[in-house]
Parts: sequence; C-alpha cells; structure tokens
Amino acid sequence: MKKQTQIDIIVNALHAVRQQKPLVVNITNYVVMNNTANALLAIGASPIMAHSRDEMAEMLSFSGALVINIGTLDSLWHARMAFAVEQANIHNKLIVLNPVGCGASTLRTEISREIAQAANKLIIRGNPSEIIALAGERGQSKGVDALQSSEQAVGAAQYLLETYRCSVVISGATDFVMTSEGQVQLRNGHPMMPYVTGMGCTLTALTGAFAAVGEETGLAATAIMGVAGEIAAQESRGPGSLQLNLLDALYQLDTETLVQRLNIS
Amino acid sequence: MKKQTQIDIIVNALHAVRQQKPLVVNITNYVVMNNTANALLAIGASPIMAHSRDEMAEMLSFSGALVINIGTLDSLWHARMAFAVEQANIHNKLIVLNPVGCGASTLRTEISREIAQAANKLIIRGNPSEIIALAGERGQSKGVDALQSSEQAVGAAQYLLETYRCSVVISGATDFVMTSEGQVQLRNGHPMMPYVTGMGCTLTALTGAFAAVGEETGLAATAIMGVAGEIAAQESRGPGSLQLNLLDALYQLDTETLVQRLNIS
Amino acid sequence: MKKQTQIDIIVNALHAVRQQKPLVVNITNYVVMNNTANALLAIGASPIMAHSRDEMAEMLSFSGALVINIGTLDSLWHARMAFAVEQANIHNKLIVLNPVGCGASTLRTEISREIAQAANKLIIRGNPSEIIALAGERGQSKGVDALQSSEQAVGAAQYLLETYRCSVVISGATDFVMTSEGQVQLRNGHPMMPYVTGMGCTLTALTGAFAAVGEETGLAATAIMGVAGEIAAQESRGPGSLQLNLLDALYQLDTETLVQRLNIS
Repeated sequence: MKKQTQIDIIVNALHAVRQQKPLVVNITNYVVMNNTANALLAIGASPIMAHSRDEMAEMLSFSGALVINIGTLDSLWHARMAFAVEQANIHNKLIVLNPVGCGASTLRTEISREIAQAANKLIIRGNPSEIIALAGERGQSKGVDALQSSEQAVGAAQYLLETYRCSVVISGATDFVMTSEGQVQLRNGHPMMPYVTGMGCTLTALTGAFAAVGEETGLAATAIMGVAGEIAAQESRGPGSLQLNLLDALYQLDTETLVQRLNIS
Repeated sequence: MKKQTQIDIIVNALHAVRQQKPLVVNITNYVVMNNTANALLAIGASPIMAHSRDEMAEMLSFSGALVINIGTLDSLWHARMAFAVEQANIHNKLIVLNPVGCGASTLRTEISREIAQAANKLIIRGNPSEIIALAGERGQSKGVDALQSSEQAVGAAQYLLETYRCSVVISGATDFVMTSEGQVQLRNGHPMMPYVTGMGCTLTALTGAFAAVGEETGLAATAIMGVAGEIAAQESRGPGSLQLNLLDALYQLDTETLVQRLNIS
Repeated sequence: MKKQTQIDIIVNALHAVRQQKPLVVNITNYVVMNNTANALLAIGASPIMAHSRDEMAEMLSFSGALVINIGTLDSLWHARMAFAVEQANIHNKLIVLNPVGCGASTLRTEISREIAQAANKLIIRGNPSEIIALAGERGQSKGVDALQSSEQAVGAAQYLLETYRCSVVISGATDFVMTSEGQVQLRNGHPMMPYVTGMGCTLTALTGAFAAVGEETGLAATAIMGVAGEIAAQESRGPGSLQLNLLDALYQLDTETLVQRLNIS
C-alpha cells in the first residue's frame, strides 16, 4: 500500500471518530478502566465500560465495536468475555483483543487463544512477548512486560493472522500493523511510555474506536497513539505527567501535526 | 427561595464539610473509584469505598451518607447495592443515586428504579437522558452519554421527585436542582467537562458529602462542582489536565471565589 | 544501627530495584490499582496486578514479592488473598500486608489478623489506627483514615512484630520502621499527602518492590516514598497535582537528592 494511502486512512479515521463519536464497549481490566475510558473520550469516541451478561446483548446491538482486555482475568470475567464475544459475533461487531500477560500464565494463554478462536472479526493488539506466546512459540516474558523487540514477533504475528484471519498489531519501539495484505511499520512513540501502566491497553481501546468507524486494521489507532504519546512525552518530566499529557494530546491532535510527525513505512 | 439564602446554604455546607470531614460510603463503579475518592478527600470529606455485605451494616452505622453509582453494574453488585440501601434506611442515612446509563439497558433502568423505590431518603443525580429514562419517558441516550439538554428533562425530574419523594439534580450546560419546594438553575461548569470520564460520578459523590452534613438537596455539591470545574477547565489544555486540576480546584476553593463565580437563579 | 548503614541500605535498594526490575504481584483494592501499578513502574519495578487462583501459583513462582491490600475487601477477594498467601509461603516470598480500614469493621480486623497469622515472611504497613486495631488495642479510626499520631501506635506495632515475627511500618507525620532489631524514625513527607487517596497503598506497593530485591524491613520504601512525596508536594497546588508529581518524583529521584533530603534517626 502506498504511503499516501496509509496517511489518508489514518486522517479519515480520525475525522470519522470525532464526527460519529462511536460507542465502544470495553470489557477491560480494573487497572486501566479510567484511563482507557478517558482516552476514548479524548479522541472523540463514547466509551461504555460494561460487563454484565444481563445487558451485554443490548449493549452490543447498538455499539460499534467490542474491546476485550484480559489484564485482571479470573473465571467470572472469563465467562463475561466469552458471552460478549458471542454477542459481538451475532451483531457482526469487530472485536479487539488485548492478551495482557499472555505467556505469563497458562490461564492467560489459553483464554487468549479461546477468544481469538471464537471471534469472527478480530484485531489482536499485544506486545512482542504476548504475540509470541499467543502463537505458541517460546517467548520470554517478564510478568506483563515484554523482553523482546517487536521485530522478533513478526513471525508469530504472521502465524496469528493466518490462523485467526485477523489483523495483528505488535507494539514496541517499532510498531507493526499486519494484515493479510501486508505490513506497515510505525516508529513514533517514546521510550518513557512503558513506564506508564496501560499504554498498550489505551492503544487497544483506541483501536476499537477506529474499528467502529470502519478502520479495521489497527493502523489509525497505532499511528495516532504513537504520535500523541510522542508529543505528550516531550512535555513530560516523568510517567505521571505523561499519563495526563497523553489525554491532552489525543484531545488536541490536529491532522496537520499528525501527518507531519508520522514516521511510517 | 431567595438567592442570598441559596448562597448561604452553599457556603455553610462547604464550611461544614471541611470542618466535620464526614464519612461517605461509596458503592460505585470501577472506572471512577479513584477519582471520586480523591474528590471527596479534596473537598475535605472522608471517603470509604466499601461494598461487602459483611461490613456494610457497620460502615453505615457510623457514616454520614451512602452513594450508589451503577456505572459497572452486575448481579453481584446489584445485591450489594440492595443490601446497602436497606442498611442506609435502617440507620436513617440519605442515599444519593447515580443511575449511570439508565435507559441504555433494561438492566440499568430496572435496577435504578428499584433502588429509587427502596430508598427512604434520596437524592437522584443524573444527566438528562438518565433522568428521562428513569421516569419512563422516551429519551434518547447514546451509551452512557446524554443527547438531550437538561431543560428537556425537567418534566421527568418533576415526576421523579413526586414519585420517590426525593430531590433531583439534572446535570448539563444548565444544572437543575429540583426539590418539592422548587427549582434552582446553575450555569457554571465548562464544555470540556464531558470529555473527562466520571464528572457526573464526582458530582454525585460530592452530593453525598454535603448530604452527610445536612445539605440534603444537592444544591451545594452542584454549585461547588460547577465552579471548581469551571476554574479547572480554564487552566487546562485538555481532559487530562482537567481531571487533575479539578481536584486542585476543589482543594483550594475559597468561599469568596465560589460566591463571586456562582451563576445561580 | 548507624545512620550511615541505614542510608546505605536505602541507596543500595533503590539501585537494586532499578537494575533488577523485580516482579511484584499485587492483590490490591480497586481504588488504587492504577496508581500503585504506576508507582511500581516509576521506581523501576514491574507490577503484576493478578488475583485469580487459576494463575496465582504460577505468578508467585517467578515473582519477587506479594502485596496484599484489603481496601475493597469481600468474601471473593478474601479467598483469593488466602490462597495467594499460601502460595507465597510455598515459594518463600515475602508478603507485605496493608490492613486498610482495620478497625473500621470487624471483617477487616479479622481478615487482617488471619493474613498476618498465615504469612511466613511478613511486613505490615499501616496507619496508626490500623496498627492499633490490628494489635487489638482500643484505637480510634474514622473510616479508613487515622486519628492518632504514629507515636501512639508504637506499642501496638511492637506487639505485632513479636506476635507475627514481622517488620512493621507505621505511617504518619513521623514514620516508624520497626523490626526485632530496633526502630528507625523518618520525618519526610508532607501534610498534603493524606489528601490523595492511596498514598499508604503506594508505600505498601513500593515496600513489596524493595522486599523483592532483599530489603525486607520496609525502610527503603518508607524513605523513598517520604522524600518523593515531599518533593512532589512542594511543586503541587493540590492533591490532583500531587498524585501526578509523585510518580514523576519517583521516576526522577537520584540518590544525591534522596540522601540530602532524608530526615532519619
């Protein structure tokens, strides 16, 4: 795909989210619920943080996408996620899966695979360790943090996109957005970002917002998160400021700045 | 009620909260627990975020008010809320209900009504869509966000205050504080506030703090939240800064600034 | 212990955490999950916020310490905590217990004692009311906030360290770090800190990080939290800024500043 086409996709997706304010249902972890809801609001989307079976069918009937994040998983939440995936399939909604800590425990690996298997329309967004573990290769994780570079996860991501017929986003110093039609590499972002909890979770939530307006690869979210994170980090003295400045940067981001800063190939 | 009387009520309530540091029990949603606890601390109150049946009777015996927020509802939390309402009634404590997402799902609408019905002493605080849905009118919600103006919810609020013998606060560009004795309109706040998740939840929690010192209409909380939000937004580049600056503004708010900025009628 | 020895312990522990990036498993309350994860990242550690029985044995096999915080306790979380303590014992990992609200309800007091009793290697970190209530003395709490000075809790802490063969950290204007070998007093920090929810929870989480690299008394965490909080508060207009600035201060803290500001005896 030509670079200009990619840029057009990203810019159009940003406009579409701000205009349509799509509803995004999030079943996510306790740690990041506030931040991911705020990131969705800041970019112009409308977050719903819901998980009960008693309302999930309704919620998914009028929402644009489902985000599933297994960061604080247990059997109760597993059941809720499985039911939500069923409902998303019924309503033909795309699911974005963040397999947090996949590889750090058998539970997380198995449930991540189960969700990836069950989802009809799917984007997987993870760090290199998670992508490698999800694909069943021998990875090396340190808790929920990655020890590999994203380049090392490209083979695993290729396996995942063939197995689950999905897009895969690998986050790292270089981000990879991989679809059946090829891969895009993005080199925005900042080394301070991993010092804020849930930056990957935020990217996953944003991926849901853009999927809800029809950008179903993860490209727009990855580009916008990278650029906003980069802008935010440059104004931050530490991870506390960065968490806050990221929300401001998402809110303020104009397309000119976005295009100018985009480091894409 | 005369304007000066209203101002006196607000100013006295602020003094009382800072002096008495009332305990406020919160059964609220995962998304806003941190922020609402911080807002209660910033204004001078003492938050307790508790939900277990095994301690709720004790907690409500020595606390000043109960805040119930259904933002991340499920059957477990429903049972906890129902029990807490019973205990609040037994101990003659006022309940502030935030029917988050009422109208967006049948579950939320039904449980909101159940709680409103069960509560002896009650303030309902919601956005226009939630108030309209709770009253059983045909409203238009978009997930948990409102599409109507607060003016459009006045009839519904009137119905609620007669049905449940409560006060009702409708939040919006104009806030309405409605009691059996009449209504007050407040026009503080800032258009950036809906871009921060849980601003309404924060107002609800503050309503609990003021109720705990005897201001049982919602007027003081609405006024103080509006003025503090307005001050905070003027110093904020986006919703990230605003979330932070609001806590600082609540903490720093002096009565002179409060009275000067108050836009009430 | 000589003052220089104490300073060496603190400085070496900070280096060790930044170098080893220890994994710390946290079973903590909903209110502070985001902040405590961020504080652990900011100081250089690697947080895991996990609670499911289905992965706790695995998680504790490769982690450095377990933090247990009962801030939003219920029977589900109680069972998870009890299982995690068993697993930490099996894997010979130190447990840091934060008995939030101990004394405010019978539930919290009983479960705090049960956990303290069950833990093989233990540090207890609490405010004066919690320490006093845990020891069974008549204390005076106001919800989850303390009404006593830390000096008043020294006798109770002494009882706890003999009963449970643990270290005890009492937080207050003066912090006490008490072990079987004696006590250290620290006078850093700032009066604005109690206006931010979960400052004690953050100290508890940091205590886990330092325990994971072998500093098993709580001294390093108490010193670093006090100094970072002091730096952060001096730059803060209110508790909103303070919450953010604390993370930046933890991230930026250099040993020279740390040693210079340390008020220890």
